[in-house]
Order: sequence, then C-alpha cells, then structure tokens
Amino acid sequence: MKYYDPQTLSFLLSEVHHLDELLQSERYSAYDLPSIDLLLDAVKEFSDTALFPYIKEMDEKPSVFKDGRVIVHEQFGPILKKAGEMGLVGAFQDEKDNGLQMPMLVVNALYFIMEAANNHVTGYLGLTSGAANVIVTFGSEQLKQKYVPNMLSMQWGGTMCLTEPQAGSSLSDITSSAHPLDDGTYSIKGQKIFISASDHQFADNFVHLVLARVNGAPAGTKGISLFLVPQYLVNVDGSIGAYNHADVVGEFVKLGQRGYCTNHLAFGDSGESIGYLIGEENKGLGYMFQLMNEARIATGRMGTGIASAAYYASLQYAKERPQGRKLQSSGKKDPNAEQTLIVNHPDVKRMLLHQKAIVEGSLSLILQCSYYVDKLMTTQGDEHDKYHMLSEILNPVAKTFPSEAGKDAVDTGLQVLGGYGYMMDFILQQYLRDIRIISIYEGTTGIQSLDLLGRKVTMLEGAALKLLAKEIEGSIMIALQKEELKKYAIELGESSKLIELCLTQLMPYAMKGNHERYLADATLFMDLFGTIVIGWQWLKMGIAALDHSDQKFRAGKLHTLDYFYKYEISRCKGLQKTICNDSEVTTQMSTDLF
Amino acid sequence: MKYYDPQTLSFLLSEVHHLDELLQSERYSAYDLPSIDLLLDAVKEFSDTALFPYIKEMDEKPSVFKDGRVIVHEQFGPILKKAGEMGLVGAFQDEKDNGLQMPMLVVNALYFIMEAANNHVTGYLGLTSGAANVIVTFGSEQLKQKYVPNMLSMQWGGTMCLTEPQAGSSLSDITSSAHPLDDGTYSIKGQKIFISASDHQFADNFVHLVLARVNGAPAGTKGISLFLVPQYLVNVDGSIGAYNHADVVGEFVKLGQRGYCTNHLAFGDSGESIGYLIGEENKGLGYMFQLMNEARIATGRMGTGIASAAYYASLQYAKERPQGRKLQSSGKKDPNAEQTLIVNHPDVKRMLLHQKAIVEGSLSLILQCSYYVDKLMTTQGDEHDKYHMLSEILNPVAKTFPSEAGKDAVDTGLQVLGGYGYMMDFILQQYLRDIRIISIYEGTTGIQSLDLLGRKVTMLEGAALKLLAKEIEGSIMIALQKEELKKYAIELGESSKLIELCLTQLMPYAMKGNHERYLADATLFMDLFGTIVIGWQWLKMGIAALDHSDQKFRAGKLHTLDYFYKYEISRCKGLQKTICNDSEVTTQMSTDLF
Repeated sequence: MKYYDPQTLSFLLSEVHHLDELLQSERYSAYDLPSIDLLLDAVKEFSDTALFPYIKEMDEKPSVFKDGRVIVHEQFGPILKKAGEMGLVGAFQDEKDNGLQMPMLVVNALYFIMEAANNHVTGYLGLTSGAANVIVTFGSEQLKQKYVPNMLSMQWGGTMCLTEPQAGSSLSDITSSAHPLDDGTYSIKGQKIFISASDHQFADNFVHLVLARVNGAPAGTKGISLFLVPQYLVNVDGSIGAYNHADVVGEFVKLGQRGYCTNHLAFGDSGESIGYLIGEENKGLGYMFQLMNEARIATGRMGTGIASAAYYASLQYAKERPQGRKLQSSGKKDPNAEQTLIVNHPDVKRMLLHQKAIVEGSLSLILQCSYYVDKLMTTQGDEHDKYHMLSEILNPVAKTFPSEAGKDAVDTGLQVLGGYGYMMDFILQQYLRDIRIISIYEGTTGIQSLDLLGRKVTMLEGAALKLLAKEIEGSIMIALQKEELKKYAIELGESSKLIELCLTQLMPYAMKGNHERYLADATLFMDLFGTIVIGWQWLKMGIAALDHSDQKFRAGKLHTLDYFYKYEISRCKGLQKTICNDSEVTTQMSTDLF
Repeated sequence: MKYYDPQTLSFLLSEVHHLDELLQSERYSAYDLPSIDLLLDAVKEFSDTALFPYIKEMDEKPSVFKDGRVIVHEQFGPILKKAGEMGLVGAFQDEKDNGLQMPMLVVNALYFIMEAANNHVTGYLGLTSGAANVIVTFGSEQLKQKYVPNMLSMQWGGTMCLTEPQAGSSLSDITSSAHPLDDGTYSIKGQKIFISASDHQFADNFVHLVLARVNGAPAGTKGISLFLVPQYLVNVDGSIGAYNHADVVGEFVKLGQRGYCTNHLAFGDSGESIGYLIGEENKGLGYMFQLMNEARIATGRMGTGIASAAYYASLQYAKERPQGRKLQSSGKKDPNAEQTLIVNHPDVKRMLLHQKAIVEGSLSLILQCSYYVDKLMTTQGDEHDKYHMLSEILNPVAKTFPSEAGKDAVDTGLQVLGGYGYMMDFILQQYLRDIRIISIYEGTTGIQSLDLLGRKVTMLEGAALKLLAKEIEGSIMIALQKEELKKYAIELGESSKLIELCLTQLMPYAMKGNHERYLADATLFMDLFGTIVIGWQWLKMGIAALDHSDQKFRAGKLHTLDYFYKYEISRCKGLQKTICNDSEVTTQMSTDLF
C-alpha cells in the first residue's frame, strides 16, 4: 500500500526547500521539525486507513444526484469529520482566524499525501479552505464570523462558482445577475456549471462564492462582483435558517474522479436567492483570483498525487510479474532459463524512470511554489515583491506541468502492465481517467499558457522572468562546482537560453500588434518553459542528494536526474525550433480547410 | 455524422497510392475504379446506418458473460449477417477460395470506414477473416473445405489464441499442450487469456486457432504448433456436432471497446477438446505470424479509425461552440463584441491540425503498407522480395505510429471540448478509452519497437532499411523539383540521416554482444523512425495534392503538411540526441533504487 515516498517528501521539505529556514520566521514559530514530522505521520496514518482503502470503491460507487440532492460515498462522512477535527481545512489560516498557521510548504505536503492516497477527497477540503480564505481576506468581519468557523470544521462546505453554460473559460461573458436590495444584500440569479463539491449529505450548509454582475455594471471582466451565497440562510444566532434557493439542478457524469461530485447550480430560480457582497462591487474577479491561484497550485498538486499513486502501482506490478528473459550476449534468450521480473527489462525501467522523474519533479515544483508563498507571507518590501513575482510566474507552470506530464506518466504506468493495465480490475485505468481532468480544471492548459506568455512573462517589463532566471542561475552556479552535476548545469544553462531565443523571435509580433501570432504557440512555450523549470528542480534535488547520507537514496535521485536530462531536457531544442519557426500555419489555417 | 473524409480516402487510394496501377494486374482485373467507388459507397452506407448509430450504445451496454456464454449487443446480429453477405470477411481471399480477391488497398480502406464508424465491430470480422486466411494458406484441404465457407459468411467466428496467464507477451513460455491421438487429431489442454471475439450469440460455432506444444516438443518458440480447435465439432456432412469443450470461463472487463468481447478460454478442462494440426508440428508460430502481421496492420488501422472519428467529433464541436473573442491589435478584447467560435482560436486550430495531421498521415501509412502487400501478391522474384521486405520493415511502424500518435490525437481532441470533453455525454471520452488498447493489442509498443530495431532494421544486413530509404529518397527527389515542397524535402532528407546516425552509435553495442544496451531505447527509435515515415507520407500527399483540382482540398493538405513539419518533424533531432546519448541510465538503474 505505497502511494508516495515519505523519504522523498521529507528530503524535499528539509533538504531541498529549506523548511528549517521557514520555521525561523515569527509567523511559523509555533512549529519545529519534530512537530512537523508528527503532522506528516498523522496525515499518512489517516490516509492509509481512511482514504486509500476507498479509492476504487469511490469510483465504482460514484456520487449520485437524486431529488435535488447529491449523495456521495458513505466514507466521506468519517473522512470530512476527521479532516475538520485535524484542522486540515484551516491549516494555512492565521491563528487569529481559527487556523493552524502552518507553512504552505507543509500544508501542500499534507494535501499531497492525502490526494496520492485518494484524489476524490481533497477537493472537498481544498475548496472549503480556499473559499474560507477569500472570506477572511476580502469579506466583512460579520461574514467572516458567521461563516468561516463552520467551514474550517467541515460542518459546512465551500465552493467557487465561476463557469456558466454560455461562457466556459471566457469569464467576461458571465451573465449571472445581482440585484441590490434595500437591506444591502443582493438578489442573485443565474446558472453555474461544473461546480465541484457543491452538495452532499455530510454538510449542513454550503457557502457558494458566486461571480455575478450588479445591474448596470460595465461589460467584461471589469463588471464582475463576488458574492457569498449560502445554500441556507444563517440566523443571527448562527443557526441554519430558510432555504436560499441555491438549487442543485443536475449532475455531470464524468470520465473519472467520480467520487468527487460536479453539479449544475441554479440561483434564484425556485425562489429568491440572497447574496452578500464580498469586498467592493466590480472587483470580484480579482478576489476570486486569490482562490484561483491557490486552486491552480492545488490542481497541479492533485495531478502529482495521482501520478505518484500510479507510479507505485506500476512499480509494484513490475516487481511481482515474471515475464520474458534477459538477452544473452549472443542476442538470444535461453528458453529453459527462468523468466525474469519485468522490472528488469530496460524498456520497463525506462517507463518507471519516466514516471518517477515526472512525479518527483512535479512535487518539487509544487513545494518550490509553496516556499515562495511562505516567503512572501514572511517578508516585506522588495523581498515580498520578489517572492510575489516568483509565485506569479510559476503559478501557471505549477498547474500545467504536473497535469500534462502527469497524464503522460500515468499513461506510461498503464503501459507497464500491458493488457492488465487496460482491465478494470487494476487501478491504473482509474488513475488515467482521474488525472485526465487535471489539465482542464481551473483553466485549461491553453488558458494557463496564454497566462504565462501573455501576462506573466511580460509583466513589469519581464521582471518576474528575470527573477526566475536568477534563481535558476543560482542553482546552476552551485552545480557547476560539483563534478557529478557539472554537465547537467551546463545543459540547463544552455536550455534556459532557448527561452530568450523564443521571446526575441516572438516579441516583434506583439510590438506590431499581432498578439494572436505572438500567442499562437503559447502552449508549446509552456511545454518548453515547464520542462526547463523541472530540469531546474531536478538540479536542485541533485545538489541536495549529493549531501544525503543514504547512498541508495542518493543514487536513485542522481539516476532519475540523469534520466530527466537525457530524455526530457533533450526535447527543448526541438520545441524552440518549432516556436521560432515563422510558418503561420495555425493562425492562417482557415476554418473551411479542416 | 461525419467520422472520416471520403474525399481524402479517394485521394489517398487514387492519387497517392496508385490504385489504378494495381488494377492493371491480372489478380485484380475483376475490378475497375467505378466498381471500387461503388464498394466504398456501399460500405459507407452500411456504416452510416448500421454501425455509427450504435457506437455509444455498445459502450453503455457492453458485452456480458453469463452462464458460460457471451451476450453481445443485439445490433451485432444484423451487422455480422450483412457483413458476411457483402463478402467483407473474404474480401482479400482468392476467388478460388470463395473470396472476392480485392486489392488489400481497397480492403483496408473499407475496414477503415467501418472502424471509424464503430471500432467495436471490425474485430469480429477481421479475426474471422485472418483465421480463415491462415487455414487457407497452411491448413489441409479438408480443414479448408470444412471450416472456411461458414467463416466467410460470418455464420462461424474465428479467433487467435496466443496469450496465456503466465506468459503474456513471452510466447516462448506457452504451456498449452497437445497430446496426439490415434486418429491423427490431438487432445488440447490449456488456458488462453485476452481472447477477443471468442464467443457470442450470433454465430453457431467458433473456430479457434490455438498455439500449443505437442508432448516432447523443444522449449521456447521452436516447440510451438498451431491447432484448429472448434467450439463444436463438425460432422462429415458439415452439420454441427458435439461440444468440443472450448469453455468460456471468464470475461475481461475493459476500459474501452466494451462492445468487443474479450474472454478467458479453457481448452480440455470440462472434457476432451479435439484439435486439428495446421501445417507441420513445431512450426506454428511462423504460421500464426501471417495472422499477426495482418492483425498488426489492422490494429494500426483501427487506431486510425478511432482517431478519425474523434477528429470529426472535435471539429464539429469547435465549429458550433462560441466562446471568447479574437484579440485586437491593442492586445485587448472587446467585451461588447460577439463571442467567436472556438475553431477561430489559434490554439484550437493547432489542436485540430494536430488531429488531422496524425489521422491522415496514419491512414496514408496503412494504405502504403497495403499497396506493398498488393505488389508482393502481384510480382515475382526480386520485385516480390523487395515488396516483402518493405512490408516487413513497415509492419511494426504501421502498428505503432497510429496507436501512439493516435492516442495523443484523441487526447488532444478531448481537450478541444474543455470541460465537456470529460463528460460522459460527449463521445470524446469514449474514443480515448477505446483507443487506449491499440498500443497494447497484438504486441505492445515495446514489443513492436524491439521487432523494428532488433529484427527488421538488421535483417539481411539492413536490406529492408536500404530499400525503404530508397523509396523515401524517391519522393524527396520529386518534391525537390516543386517550389512549394522543396523545404520539406530538404528537411525530410536531413531527418532521415538521423536514423543512420543513431544506428552508427548503437551498432557497436550489438557487435560487442551488449544487445540489451543496443535495444534499450528501441521505443524512442520507433518514435523517430515512425515520425520520419509519416513525414514521408505527408510529402507524398503534398506531391499529389499539388496536382489536385479542388483548390480548397489542395490548400488543406498543404497546410497540414506544413503543420506536420513544423510541429512533429522538429522533434526528430531531440529524439536522435537522446538515442545517441551514451548514458546507460535505463540499463544501469538497479531495481532497488526505484
């Protein structure tokens, strides 16, 4: 029952991403390394016993929608209760807001463990946590006191309601409306689709964060406001009041993550639906982006978790399944010899190394981003701004690399099992179905790539990009001093220059107002950028591994680093060549030629 | 209801792959171009009405195993009857053996249409056809007369029984046994798994081709014989006799292709199971490889069909779904403007071009292989040998490229739909599940890659490779003369040299007896090789398109050719770099480091 590697996780926290340094800050002074070890152990125990044993069952007995209510798997009862008791929902929140004020680095490590064990579970917790965080940051004191405590205990669930049927990813086309009422509240009307965790039998109430337009608001994203719309109104004494007509009107039956419900909500259809404005009118999208940014890292982390579980499932099969024989020096096989385990075939090793390289590289990136969040929480002025920019530029990458490469890794993992991988009896096919949503949730890969190339790379005249380049350069300088790592350091340096090369080629398009052409290959730019960022993470892991006392662990990390450079970094030049190719085939292809 | 493009198919047959030339041969003299058009139309009509409308239903109401029998979807009744009547099962067979003696080029075009319409259907026909073909080629006159006619009419089904639980891809470990009886028949005993189309309610009998060892046969693949084992014995007068104890003992519940049953068979468990030797003892694997080679092309063709259907499903969605806006020269969007159809977004065009390039490139390769089969059927001596060798070297590529790249294409197609792609209401998720088996069936990608690099590339001192290089060179020479194609011709020439570069680097390992290292990156070599072969097919399509009278069709082909070179051929250099990298990370990775 292995679905992640505790030794690697501890290595990443302590030896690669400087947990000890973070714990020096006042914000995190309540924690020390032993107390964090206890937390990691407790969440592993919880995941081993309450989460992992139910992953297959949650797929086979998915959530169902009946008579206007959603019924999820029975095991969610004890899971959500226990997670609330453990404080996992408010783990990152300030102590003053009833949170545990843990470093984000640790929070993401704990959630990674849980979603490697069972990716159908963490969304319920994460959305509630994120929604609570938005209320705490931008909401009134009254809203905060009335709603947040019950969310942190998981007695109430939280959601984010963005997508509408006619708008999809195009948030500027949101048409849900908010009509101001005399008492300062609003009457909300509108349809929201693909709303995760929006109802189930184990919460007394749901707190929906809804994007809508106040009457007369400007068109586009500048006219969007954010509202708290509870499923049931809450009385002054905190008790549950009248139904607030946040109707569940349908469910989406998905390819995977079937234990994690996704529904269609209608506000104000069956009666009046009261909403409470969060912050100021017309600034809603900005507030929601705090949650979106968290959710994007969480989504990448979820992809990493699924890919991790798939890796260990493939590895176990490969270590138990005898098939075929090693080649002799004659090039023949001895049919009288015993069969070998498939883990001994080079192509199977290649596939397993692929999985391992993607999983651990992705996890390191998620923790890198978490470290930056912790730094921006614990620094001020220029330093704070620096970590903010680093967070901003890595955010779409942390969403995308684990989802795209993670999907490939799980697909590779299914292939390790051959015909059995395709059978419903084995779990690989489920992980493949589960992970397929990750590159769609919270902004598709296409959207993330536009964000990276269109906004993050260009923001403040490339300041974020320069800061990131400096971070990477710092790791390269250290690695150049180490005999074992020198060649990777040189290769990463060369590959990083490809990013500049691409931008030099593309920028003139933007200058000339041809933004469409500038952005046409944003998805390939993301692939290049993400691969280099993960190459950097592997170099950092290599540096830390050199000092690691466990020789086997050290060798495993250095081998996987070598794999990543041989098989993945080698793709960069081709990607740059494509991006710099001046053919305008995608922008010029007219629709009737398809 | 478009799932393939009839105009492209006709173009490939007539303008790229010289159907008219094939029809000049005596073997195919019964056909002319108009009669083949009628055949294509008839199969399209059959597919439109009897196949495509049931694809989703066959997934939702899959085959079931109950009381020792398999029950498939009701629609298989009329489908199999009609296919038998149309002569589709014996389409390639000689007239003297009751076949239609059609060119393989046409047979594969017809089957492609059917499996683009419904990939759950063609396996039933193709396996029966392939098994009949083995009996005709290697079986006794008696077996042929007794079994083949009922197979060609689809009153009886045919199967291939290779895989056993303990052996998987390792056929040398087959343990099913054949005990000689006094009357010249054999008593067969053994378990076979993953047996497709091995039982259903619409056939009176099943003719299993079973690999087994005669008592005392040598170990390994040299001791394997091939037997015809009917589900029911057949009386002298041709009527169905006693049950022959070919028991269906279980079913495999698969991720996709759920209308196409896959079962576990046990021979001789519940009573005696009589087998009839085909050809000579211990030569069974060689005979089976005739069927395997056919099945490999058929599998690649099936992947192409699924990817084709997915492409047209994505395209339809992209042409109907409004979302977002085009960027203005300011880099902003006008929120008051109408939304645009998503097909107008460059990233969506890129995804659709990706699908189109893979689908049409794969289809062209399948037809290229079919053309070679037709040429070897209609030539003698050196020419025959030449086409035999070209068939041999392209066979694993025709299996692998459409299955691996096809899987990517369908995955891309799902992404085109965003969140809706992940929903069970839309068919993309089904195509993704369906196509996932294609790189596993009939030898996984790993096995095909070992075949390519380990056998086909080296056979007769590289003779097949040289012949293929000459074919590619021929197309390059023509394209160099065309202004529009010159740059692609030059790039294909340069990319082809990468194959030599890889072999120069790898061969010394094989010479020194380090076959494991020689073959370690066979899968990447396959990727490189396949990409170049498809680049060649696109160049051939470009050459033919230049002469095409329909300017829109011509432009569509030239755009897609440009896409393939910009986005796919550009990967070749990176692949070569990885293959030539002398790190031995996969062969050296010891199991305990994972």
